[in-house]
Amino acid sequence: MHILVVGAAGMLGRKLVERIAADRLSLGAETDKVTLVDVIAPAAPASLSSITNASEVDLAVPGAAEALVATRPDIIFHLAAVVSGEAEADFEKGYRVNLDGTRALFEAIRLEGTKEPYFPKVIFASSVAVFGAPFPDRIGDEFFTTPLTSYGTQKAIAELLLSDYSRRGIFDGIGLRLPTICIRPGKPNKAASGFFSNILREPLAGQEAVLPVDETVRHWFASPRSAIGFLVHSARLDLKTVGPRRNLMMPGLSALVGEEIAALERVAGAKAVKLIRREPDPVIQKIVAGWPADFNPQRALSLGFTAETTFDEIIRVHIDDELGGTI
Amino acid sequence: MHILVVGAAGMLGRKLVERIAADRLSLGAETDKVTLVDVIAPAAPASLSSITNASEVDLAVPGAAEALVATRPDIIFHLAAVVSGEAEADFEKGYRVNLDGTRALFEAIRLEGTKEPYFPKVIFASSVAVFGAPFPDRIGDEFFTTPLTSYGTQKAIAELLLSDYSRRGIFDGIGLRLPTICIRPGKPNKAASGFFSNILREPLAGQEAVLPVDETVRHWFASPRSAIGFLVHSARLDLKTVGPRRNLMMPGLSALVGEEIAALERVAGAKAVKLIRREPDPVIQKIVAGWPADFNPQRALSLGFTAETTFDEIIRVHIDDELGGTI
Repeated sequence: MHILVVGAAGMLGRKLVERIAADRLSLGAETDKVTLVDVIAPAAPASLSSITNASEVDLAVPGAAEALVATRPDIIFHLAAVVSGEAEADFEKGYRVNLDGTRALFEAIRLEGTKEPYFPKVIFASSVAVFGAPFPDRIGDEFFTTPLTSYGTQKAIAELLLSDYSRRGIFDGIGLRLPTICIRPGKPNKAASGFFSNILREPLAGQEAVLPVDETVRHWFASPRSAIGFLVHSARLDLKTVGPRRNLMMPGLSALVGEEIAALERVAGAKAVKLIRREPDPVIQKIVAGWPADFNPQRALSLGFTAETTFDEIIRVHIDDELGGTI
Repeated sequence: MHILVVGAAGMLGRKLVERIAADRLSLGAETDKVTLVDVIAPAAPASLSSITNASEVDLAVPGAAEALVATRPDIIFHLAAVVSGEAEADFEKGYRVNLDGTRALFEAIRLEGTKEPYFPKVIFASSVAVFGAPFPDRIGDEFFTTPLTSYGTQKAIAELLLSDYSRRGIFDGIGLRLPTICIRPGKPNKAASGFFSNILREPLAGQEAVLPVDETVRHWFASPRSAIGFLVHSARLDLKTVGPRRNLMMPGLSALVGEEIAALERVAGAKAVKLIRREPDPVIQKIVAGWPADFNPQRALSLGFTAETTFDEIIRVHIDDELGGTI
């Protein structure tokens, strides 16, 4: 089975490829060819190097998607995107990469299929950003998509295209609306959502972290391991069972910042909690107030997607996967 | 005030221009310049000929939208589209006209505004086709858009773009999801929805009409006069009062085919009803079963949009506007 990962240099792309490297049967059939692309050259794990082709590709460049799709991958993971802040700051770049790049990929698949029958599976990373406030307390599977960012608009458009191309039999697509990934590995970054991870990851490593919002802020989380689980489960799933509504909110944990901190105390003690410095930031508070806090992802649960149900588990996953099992 | 009508040769475009011709103050300020475009050359009413520029324009042709927008219209009515059946039969044409053409118009406005401040109002004709079955009995303003046609997909994408461009302050947009227009003037056509109008219009003119579905079929209607009313009301409305969710289901009348026929009998007698020939058509029955039947358009109603509340009124409007007031 030939796997193409678009956006392979990102956090999810790298973790997905590590998962395939650890078990070539993880996607349901044996992976015997891997194509990795991103706007910066992605690296392949050593154990996959003999079957991997990694290169620097910008899907929005004319001809790029066609050349990629001409290799006829069986499963295409489309994880590439200009992130929210950048898509808001650079209108043209956001639309070029997130809309035109995605459409170029979908069109390349359509045109490839006109040469010789071709019906790959396309697994697309969408986002809770397709939703815009005000929200009901718990967002159901049939809530409408009224994004309040250009990034969310571009993801919502890509979802519509994915559904239509799937309905037309051009490819077999699924769009996964990912919760906020927590605990995000790596260094603290400037994303407005960064503190949700920072206040756990940094204290677990004995470092200070800043909390810019109140402990009563509620949000929707899943671990990186769960996010990779969504991708892998999608690869193994018969998408006919999904029906025509191909874009699904993924399961997650709705929790208060206060619950994050309580879990940190249970796992790492009061000393860790003391490393969280409260520095209220009205700008971040306002951004976060516009984000969805709770979902009822019945459809995804009924299709077998799973995520953590407590923050203790989310912290455990981080300790196991990033810290070698101990703190 | 300079008015641009894209899609001016269509039924709504022609009726809108007739309305402006009848009252140049109808859009709130005096209309002193009119630009009419369509893929076939539109005609201007004689009374507007001195202030009208009519031409054949395909928005999806590179440069066409820029040239149009360079004339800096104050209000742009975007009514042009490849219709549902054609967008389904010709994938490339549907996306080219309904998506690329619309985006070209929106982009032309954005680029025009980078030269010199420009903030036109954009009034976009959307459709109930943005929704896809299964539906709740009554569709609320927050129901999600999961179209089951390429046409509906293209309209839903245009809606998302319209919201984002409006949120960004590029133009002041509103998307109107129009009910099925009934009674559609003109000849019977092959649209699957044609019978809803045919079974009234033809008997009112002493002609036979075919009914391919059961009398218990429910659907969502507004007259051509109401549709023009939606466009005119949008032109006069302060769109800040609409808020960020710029795409609205328009008011209409939810009625059974049996109620259409009962109203026909009240207005034109049993003789007219006898001209309806029942010819069940399983293909049309199946298409119609996938269409929405009832809405609760609270937001549009609260913003002052209005439509008929009985089929007697809808028939009256047709007699007044198309048959000179008598049958």
